[in-house]
Amino acid sequence: MVFTVDMPVRWVDTDALRVVHYSNYFRYVEAAEEELYRSLGFTFKELNEKYKIAVPRVEAFCRYEAPARYENVLTVTLQLGEKAEKILRYDFEIHRKSDGELLCSGYLKIIGLDLGTWKATALPADLIAKVASALK
Amino acid sequence: MVFTVDMPVRWVDTDALRVVHYSNYFRYVEAAEEELYRSLGFTFKELNEKYKIAVPRVEAFCRYEAPARYENVLTVTLQLGEKAEKILRYDFEIHRKSDGELLCSGYLKIIGLDLGTWKATALPADLIAKVASALK
Amino acid sequence: MVFTVDMPVRWVDTDALRVVHYSNYFRYVEAAEEELYRSLGFTFKELNEKYKIAVPRVEAFCRYEAPARYENVLTVTLQLGEKAEKILRYDFEIHRKSDGELLCSGYLKIIGLDLGTWKATALPADLIAKVASALK
Amino acid sequence: MVFTVDMPVRWVDTDALRVVHYSNYFRYVEAAEEELYRSLGFTFKELNEKYKIAVPRVEAFCRYEAPARYENVLTVTLQLGEKAEKILRYDFEIHRKSDGELLCSGYLKIIGLDLGTWKATALPADLIAKVASALK
Repeated sequence: MVFTVDMPVRWVDTDALRVVHYSNYFRYVEAAEEELYRSLGFTFKELNEKYKIAVPRVEAFCRYEAPARYENVLTVTLQLGEKAEKILRYDFEIHRKSDGELLCSGYLKIIGLDLGTWKATALPADLIAKVASALK
Repeated sequence: MVFTVDMPVRWVDTDALRVVHYSNYFRYVEAAEEELYRSLGFTFKELNEKYKIAVPRVEAFCRYEAPARYENVLTVTLQLGEKAEKILRYDFEIHRKSDGELLCSGYLKIIGLDLGTWKATALPADLIAKVASALK
Repeated sequence: MVFTVDMPVRWVDTDALRVVHYSNYFRYVEAAEEELYRSLGFTFKELNEKYKIAVPRVEAFCRYEAPARYENVLTVTLQLGEKAEKILRYDFEIHRKSDGELLCSGYLKIIGLDLGTWKATALPADLIAKVASALK
Repeated sequence: MVFTVDMPVRWVDTDALRVVHYSNYFRYVEAAEEELYRSLGFTFKELNEKYKIAVPRVEAFCRYEAPARYENVLTVTLQLGEKAEKILRYDFEIHRKSDGELLCSGYLKIIGLDLGTWKATALPADLIAKVASALK
């Protein structure tokens, strides 16, 4: 099971080649991750304030296959690639909605970060369980 | 007297019209403001942590005259347009360095914000004095 | 009649004060403008390619009243403030959806730009008529 | 031999964790790449217009070690990791200038893209030679 969300390419996301700037795909993936947490009843803010943790990225990778252009609608899909006490890896693909072409794929690896000590810590078990259930 | 700083247009700042996206000029002006404070021995961070204030913008205005393009170097100039206990207004102009063409002009109005109460407060007298001296 | 669109604050849009960076409100307004055109059957791309015009901003203004934070949903409303052959002014307000608080207001003034000559030109009559009808 | 450039963290690059947003490191690396080309007498624009090629990224990877904060100055270093007729891989490291701490490392893989056909093409031999000479 995957988590999927559609989002339009914004004009500001394009560059002078008339395509989406490569760094913005990481922003689309993070927006999808935010929507995933929202759908599960979590937010980054709640993680910060209630659990006193943050979920920084420790690795980010993307392979670019084809350019997205202004007015394209993108379909971002997230899958769970790795799951451990302190780490989750989201594997993503971004397709153009209109024709289904694969534009890019990659992953984000996130960890739990204790906001008191700024050291790696266990992710909330509740978060892992809900993410694993949604993406299993 | 004005404060002047040069900065190159970055590729990511352009859009599919092959010109700098209009929102980015506000970022260039803020970068110039950061360099102004740095040159005076202040930083946003120090304002936050030592003075317990922030300097949020309460008004921003820009009139666009001509487009900047990738590879242009921009000259951002700041002048002091208004000075009061709780408020400073920076008037800015951005010119293309190579030919001096005026690309845009406008202003940013900033206030002191008490980070305890999140209400307007006096700007540090030291900051006002140094800015006024640098831009008088 | 106004055009209204809701959009969530993205994590990347916040800054180290834990509020939305002031330049991003201009991006939200542009996203609303894009959605307006989309709802009327236009896109920036079509304007570029079919009408050979662009719609650059010639003025942008925003007054900031209260900060938006991560996880806020914003309601962006556009009204037509001025309408002429070569110019449209969109007056905007951005409210927090949850409690209706006004976060900022301002305007964007756009012109038709002939992509052949890079001079101001009439906006497509069809665009003006549809926008005026949607926002009258 | 490496190419090195210093750049300050801008306020807008931080997020509500009070650290630089992870996507921005890719922008810093691209800014360093732009400075590398500039130092060699090339620009993205010239590549587009004279050589009729673009140099899109086909892979991007970053491992994050420690956060950068507002007011840090970053030292971005580029090395040549791979060199072929149609491909270059830049290996990068970003260190905090003040204490030398490694903040992140990774790579960008770029290709030559024929702007007529939008297919992969050889990079200009002159570009490869100059880059290889500067980074050998």
